Amino acid sequence: MPQAQHQVVVIGGGFGGLTAVRRLKTAPVQIKLIDKRNFHLFQPLLYQVAGGALSPANIASPLRNLFARQANCQVLLGNVSRIDPAARSVTTNEGIVRYDTLVVAAGATHSYFGQDQWEKYAPGLKTIEDATNIRAKILTAFEEAENELDPAVRKRLLTFVIVGGGPTGVELAGTLADISRLSLKHDFRSINPADSRIILVEGAERVLTPFPPRLSQHATEFLQQRGVQVMLKTRVNEIQADHVLVKTQDQEQVIETRNVLWAAGVQAAPIGKQLAEAAGASLDRSGRIVVEPDLSLPGYPEVFVIGDLANYPHQGETPLPGVAPVAIQQGQFVARLIIARLQGAPLPQFKYLDKGNLATIGKWSAVADFGWLKISGLSAWVLWLFVHLMYIIGFRNRLLVLIQWAWNFLTNDRSARLITGEQNTSDTNSTPLTSVSELPPREN
Amino acid sequence: MPQAQHQVVVIGGGFGGLTAVRRLKTAPVQIKLIDKRNFHLFQPLLYQVAGGALSPANIASPLRNLFARQANCQVLLGNVSRIDPAARSVTTNEGIVRYDTLVVAAGATHSYFGQDQWEKYAPGLKTIEDATNIRAKILTAFEEAENELDPAVRKRLLTFVIVGGGPTGVELAGTLADISRLSLKHDFRSINPADSRIILVEGAERVLTPFPPRLSQHATEFLQQRGVQVMLKTRVNEIQADHVLVKTQDQEQVIETRNVLWAAGVQAAPIGKQLAEAAGASLDRSGRIVVEPDLSLPGYPEVFVIGDLANYPHQGETPLPGVAPVAIQQGQFVARLIIARLQGAPLPQFKYLDKGNLATIGKWSAVADFGWLKISGLSAWVLWLFVHLMYIIGFRNRLLVLIQWAWNFLTNDRSARLITGEQNTSDTNSTPLTSVSELPPREN
Repeated sequence: MPQAQHQVVVIGGGFGGLTAVRRLKTAPVQIKLIDKRNFHLFQPLLYQVAGGALSPANIASPLRNLFARQANCQVLLGNVSRIDPAARSVTTNEGIVRYDTLVVAAGATHSYFGQDQWEKYAPGLKTIEDATNIRAKILTAFEEAENELDPAVRKRLLTFVIVGGGPTGVELAGTLADISRLSLKHDFRSINPADSRIILVEGAERVLTPFPPRLSQHATEFLQQRGVQVMLKTRVNEIQADHVLVKTQDQEQVIETRNVLWAAGVQAAPIGKQLAEAAGASLDRSGRIVVEPDLSLPGYPEVFVIGDLANYPHQGETPLPGVAPVAIQQGQFVARLIIARLQGAPLPQFKYLDKGNLATIGKWSAVADFGWLKISGLSAWVLWLFVHLMYIIGFRNRLLVLIQWAWNFLTNDRSARLITGEQNTSDTNSTPLTSVSELPPREN
Repeated sequence: MPQAQHQVVVIGGGFGGLTAVRRLKTAPVQIKLIDKRNFHLFQPLLYQVAGGALSPANIASPLRNLFARQANCQVLLGNVSRIDPAARSVTTNEGIVRYDTLVVAAGATHSYFGQDQWEKYAPGLKTIEDATNIRAKILTAFEEAENELDPAVRKRLLTFVIVGGGPTGVELAGTLADISRLSLKHDFRSINPADSRIILVEGAERVLTPFPPRLSQHATEFLQQRGVQVMLKTRVNEIQADHVLVKTQDQEQVIETRNVLWAAGVQAAPIGKQLAEAAGASLDRSGRIVVEPDLSLPGYPEVFVIGDLANYPHQGETPLPGVAPVAIQQGQFVARLIIARLQGAPLPQFKYLDKGNLATIGKWSAVADFGWLKISGLSAWVLWLFVHLMYIIGFRNRLLVLIQWAWNFLTNDRSARLITGEQNTSDTNSTPLTSVSELPPREN
């Protein structure tokens, strides 16, 4: 009778949840994995979809496929609306699920620092739809510029502002530089895509703050060589449809642009707040739940919170960052802990092993920091590629991703640069019924 | 001065328009190719995207990429709202374009035979968005069935009705059979996807009517062996959210289903009607323009209509079918004719060379009819694959499509089975708040 077995419910099929389920494969438990999407998303490569280099299916693996052969796991598609830690139940739009042990790995979403009205002008990059929307936005800007007669409007269309100089912002800026200088080189007749302005805005005094200053400096120089303007110590005060207002120290400045991308902040999934209130637990400023040393919810040893949703004060200092290695190690730990408890073994405490930081900046270049080793450039990029491929090797389409990637790198091709979604080509175009025949040919 | 050159405007980047532009590469003309999408779509493989076997980018090539090196062609993204044959101008949402020669290759869209209210329950398969929507619809049906307690609702969710037994309908039925029997075999715990009912409804007395009866018979038997129910001489009288009313000869029958796919009819793009009215030309029942023997618009020798939008009475008989080979040959012919006119050479008349008919039915099987040779099964399938790959070889991503395909065929994998688009998982589910824990395990 399977119902008599220990019931484990895992919310979220990201890095943390996925790892926990996998590590429980041979444990004497029944697992229900609940996710609102039917696939696991390899988020570190999402910017490659936004840049038209990879297809959504290259970086997304159907959850049912991943667990087809894991007999003790059932995948449930559904939105979790409520967790009741006293009743040990989870409510989704499909019904109520009871648990003996719960793992909450619901992740994070964008944060606009209270300025939610910015979202419609400055999309973030968290979901597959975000990526294909940003892809369409970037490509549509070039298309509209090609048809545009007014030089001021054209310049606005070809100005890209990326808010946030963390890994995602740096990757997006590098990708935009590659798109405009290399991939679209021969594609247009009226505009020269290489004339695009790409501006990276960062509030701190350097980009990639988790890295040592020397590597941040390297990343900045790399981007600048590729034509990216890096604005440090700069805050965004306003985002509108056709401009951004930024402030560098005391100097305000208007940047005319139709293309703002948001890579500045994240906040924990809303279910964290509901759970914390129900359990009387503390939330930090980003909406993350402050967990016990064994990642459990205070007062509820059978509930674990891991990944981007958890605030785990690492060695009494700052909380661990919201990156894949943390979520993966926490998923591994929780699985070990669940098995240990079922065996009546002593309960360990979570300890994060920092394996270092890696970020790509653009074609052939990355930065890497392992404490004892700090490298940048091609060698770091090869390492970055290796680490990411090793992880993807757990998935079926690894070979195809590798081939697609190799092809793109060698040819500067971006064959996935499709404008898809709701079909509206330039409804907002400001000069209808001008004569396209009169467009001046590009000078070159 | 490029403006002094002969101006050719081509509307539509499908098979016909694309071929015409390519064949004019070395001609002393300036070409403007107008399309509302930024890519050429390889429509014969669209059902593979709907089935989750290929990604959109595998079968779509960015138009700018295709013509990056063709200096005499400018690609314009825009919706054509009006053609004025007297003023020799085309109006798009981006402005007015003047032409010396116009090639109208705007294609076709679905036809619901005047029952447009059916569209929301029975999506057709013409665009990339259609394909990803159908993909999500099919996969969501299985997901909802997995969560469903009511056997009647579950059966309705697992019943798929395909309306129309032409090549697209047959391919979709074969794909659904493969998905339910092979690809999803181990994916679910409460349902067995192989229990799905797949019903193909065709009004005529056999499927694939363009083929000889023997090959239609083969296709029917192939589908039946794979569990598809083929209903011939059957018309659809009503389509609602949860059922279809069909009539076989005099017998009416209700099929309870939540999944209806439309593969029954097409009609010419609406711009054809506007052009015909402006030029005083005749439209046929499907909205196609009846063209002259040289594919020109009656009374306007400088305007050509080709592909699905043209009614070309082949050798005085039935008009040519709306298939890729017809459009391609017409595109080639029009390009030759434009060049001949510029050289003052005599004007030829279009003549269609029928190279035969090919259609896949499912894994490893197809039917082929070359008049002198009629084959079916594996040999026809290899031929089908060869012909399609030869065509795709004109495109950059041919190798990746081949690899993806080979992988899928050998492993039954459908790695692109993502539910994307607007995020709503089963809002219409009829049994909220039942206990998912109580779902009976599948018997097997």
